[in-house]
Amino acid sequence: MPDKVRIALDAMGGDHGPAVVVAGAALALQKEPAAEFLFFGNAAQVAPLLAARPQLKAVSRLTHTEIAVRMDAKPSQALRYGRWKSSMWLAIEAVKKGAADVAVSCGNTGALMAMAKFELKMLSGIARPAIAALWPTLRGEAIVLDLGASIGADAEHLVNLAMMGAATARILLGIARPTVGLLNIGVEEAKGLEPVREAGRILREEKLPDLDYVGFVEGDDIGKGKVDVVVTEGFAGNIALKTAEGTARQMGEYFRAAMSHSLSARIGYLFARTALRKLKERIDPRRSNGGVFLGLNGIVIKSHGNTDAEGFAAAIGVGHGVVRDELLAKITFALGRHHDYQRQALGGAAS
Amino acid sequence: MPDKVRIALDAMGGDHGPAVVVAGAALALQKEPAAEFLFFGNAAQVAPLLAARPQLKAVSRLTHTEIAVRMDAKPSQALRYGRWKSSMWLAIEAVKKGAADVAVSCGNTGALMAMAKFELKMLSGIARPAIAALWPTLRGEAIVLDLGASIGADAEHLVNLAMMGAATARILLGIARPTVGLLNIGVEEAKGLEPVREAGRILREEKLPDLDYVGFVEGDDIGKGKVDVVVTEGFAGNIALKTAEGTARQMGEYFRAAMSHSLSARIGYLFARTALRKLKERIDPRRSNGGVFLGLNGIVIKSHGNTDAEGFAAAIGVGHGVVRDELLAKITFALGRHHDYQRQALGGAAS
Repeated sequence: MPDKVRIALDAMGGDHGPAVVVAGAALALQKEPAAEFLFFGNAAQVAPLLAARPQLKAVSRLTHTEIAVRMDAKPSQALRYGRWKSSMWLAIEAVKKGAADVAVSCGNTGALMAMAKFELKMLSGIARPAIAALWPTLRGEAIVLDLGASIGADAEHLVNLAMMGAATARILLGIARPTVGLLNIGVEEAKGLEPVREAGRILREEKLPDLDYVGFVEGDDIGKGKVDVVVTEGFAGNIALKTAEGTARQMGEYFRAAMSHSLSARIGYLFARTALRKLKERIDPRRSNGGVFLGLNGIVIKSHGNTDAEGFAAAIGVGHGVVRDELLAKITFALGRHHDYQRQALGGAAS
Repeated sequence: MPDKVRIALDAMGGDHGPAVVVAGAALALQKEPAAEFLFFGNAAQVAPLLAARPQLKAVSRLTHTEIAVRMDAKPSQALRYGRWKSSMWLAIEAVKKGAADVAVSCGNTGALMAMAKFELKMLSGIARPAIAALWPTLRGEAIVLDLGASIGADAEHLVNLAMMGAATARILLGIARPTVGLLNIGVEEAKGLEPVREAGRILREEKLPDLDYVGFVEGDDIGKGKVDVVVTEGFAGNIALKTAEGTARQMGEYFRAAMSHSLSARIGYLFARTALRKLKERIDPRRSNGGVFLGLNGIVIKSHGNTDAEGFAAAIGVGHGVVRDELLAKITFALGRHHDYQRQALGGAAS
């Protein structure tokens, strides 16, 4: 475990820019006093914000750049004007050069992923990156991946996602041998996509020591908390995530409307407001902010673009946790063992 | 518009069998007095239930069969033992032979789809079937398809889904020119699956008169009611549907827990209970029960397996509505026009 966790921050990302990034870092420092920060961004905007927070400033270094990746830039555009010099690029570069342990950005997701791939390159044995995040469930939290980094997946990629997701769950959920399910559209073996069925077969046969593969799960099993890790390719994963977010908001709207529907309901609201405030905190999307980019030679955390200081601090907290517990080493170890197993299985078959 | 709508019912389907099917038909008859029913099922079970409802019995005919498709049968198994003689098969056969206008079943989805395909065959120009259903939104209701009939889709299939979905929305939502969106994982043109992008191009260029194509939508746009018709292939569609159902239940659980969290909250609940009862009715999943199988030479409606009489009546209501407003004729007409357009476009390009 590293003594100090050094966190590189893209100070210019997100809808609110440096104000939220610096305030979020200050909150994160309260929770993790051993953290150090490398800010990349426009000094004219960032320096005054740091100056107003002496404790944070004491553990921070600021690198000036005038170039910021726009939230609406296409990845190819962002790479064209932002390579070598944008705040986003420099934050990732700090990880690549070993100056930081993790980079956190609330900037443009597509650009962040493109730059992370370009700079950090893929881990050996992993063909494509993934995004994993915490998903609140009735039993606590689950890790769901891929939430949209890569469209489509063959069986081997799904198996890799299962291993990377389980490693992330061990750290973020603190579960020694997380249960893992493959997202599918039916629980019978015969149903669903061929690569999903094939991945199920591999996971069942290989019996990996660090994860407990329990079979297929369906969309409604995610919120039930049926498994600790839900594995799917990025198209379906992104649609599941956004649909869940939309449904949660929709239910919230319905509920607000009901509680102001009549005088009697408004009185009821007054009596229940403490409990409802707690509920609001419980389902606060800021609490589960922070998508982990997996499959790369380095850790990058994506925060929601429109989050506030508290949400950004949560994303930094995710980054801090996965570095402290050496996610990358755990993933590399699990991948290595999986590939040894496959080589032996092939060797066994050939001999 | 047909004088009488003749509805074939698989009396043995669902978790509760004939009790729910017969009671549901009785409720549906109250709403649609011109309906007639053809029941297929075990006479020993169904006849007494009908005898207890003289009004329903007067407009019903019962055909006995001892064979019922099990809820957990694989489609291939169901076809093997249920072809020619199961209650499910006979209900669909009634549609094929013109004895009924629509078949409704709360039985095994996979078996129902397999039998419907086998008996009714695909519409000319449609390669694969789809399931469409009503989805409650903040602005009312939307039609979402495909909810799991076919995995994967090329651009042409997505365009067909758009046309069939729009025809369904015209009838079930009463909107002359429904707005249509393609479900994708980003709103920019460059994002997402290639067939989705290509379908978007076709829909934009062809400017179909009966639908208003508005572009890509994301998962959270469904619940917002951004469009009247959401088009996607069956894997992502099924995962979106199940995830939304799971999230709605999860939010309901959180809310129930909050409202019984303290004495004060329980008092609040008493004051708000009328409003909350109305909310419960509003989000009652029975209200939007009834998936329409599209793309076949005949209309089959799939009800949830674990629904009650009210939910089954809603599914019959969907079937009644699409028959009365001649969904099949509307779909055939729209498909014909689309194919004419494509022929002309090709002819124009060749000349």
